[in-house]
Amino acid sequence: MPEPQPQSAEPTASDSLKKFQKELSAGTVSLALLAVLGAATEPMYGYQIAKRLEHEGEGVLSGKQSALYPVLRNLCAAGLLDSHVEPSIAGPPRRYYQITAAGREALREWVAAWRATRDSVDSVLQGLPQ
Amino acid sequence: MPEPQPQSAEPTASDSLKKFQKELSAGTVSLALLAVLGAATEPMYGYQIAKRLEHEGEGVLSGKQSALYPVLRNLCAAGLLDSHVEPSIAGPPRRYYQITAAGREALREWVAAWRATRDSVDSVLQGLPQ
Repeated sequence: MPEPQPQSAEPTASDSLKKFQKELSAGTVSLALLAVLGAATEPMYGYQIAKRLEHEGEGVLSGKQSALYPVLRNLCAAGLLDSHVEPSIAGPPRRYYQITAAGREALREWVAAWRATRDSVDSVLQGLPQ
Repeated sequence: MPEPQPQSAEPTASDSLKKFQKELSAGTVSLALLAVLGAATEPMYGYQIAKRLEHEGEGVLSGKQSALYPVLRNLCAAGLLDSHVEPSIAGPPRRYYQITAAGREALREWVAAWRATRDSVDSVLQGLPQ
């Protein structure tokens, strides 16, 4: 008979990697979404945004497509995106997103903050033994 | 008499920058702390770690020194750091931190995850109009 699993297992390296990746993605997914819509020449719907991220971000940011929707909603609530619903010939109506003027301003600030953080982290990592 | 402030003000660009920076720092501060201790040749106490981060990370990661302690405690709880207290001639006893074997393994994984995320974000940002 197998040993019963202890109620609270020791945290494993893979638990801590999962937690780290989740923390890392919290800010970076918002930035990537805003950047995709900042580069877009017309409103995009969720699936298009997910495909663009998969293509440009090599799939690392995208994960499950469903994970994008809460982030899109948060960016709308913060006034950084606008959205509207349009009927679709192919199926149910689609919600289209576009960046607002406040979103463009935020994007400029976020890109600067991202670059500063990125360079700091890379500079700290350079101290590591190879 | 001044107008009363509305109960729930519209979110501003600076609110959203603050939120973005907070999200970005959640993962990156843990990574930077682990990297500093991964590069250290002997146990370090909080103030030393903060100074090292300020120096190498050009101050962007450090913020307030007090913000490091919860992160150090989390890394200890996850088994990635060990700590012990030593008396100090200069004042109160100091808690020293050092990286564990599990911490070194996690650091290798986190560095790889960081580089993949960083490159994805940078690739998405390249699509932006300059």
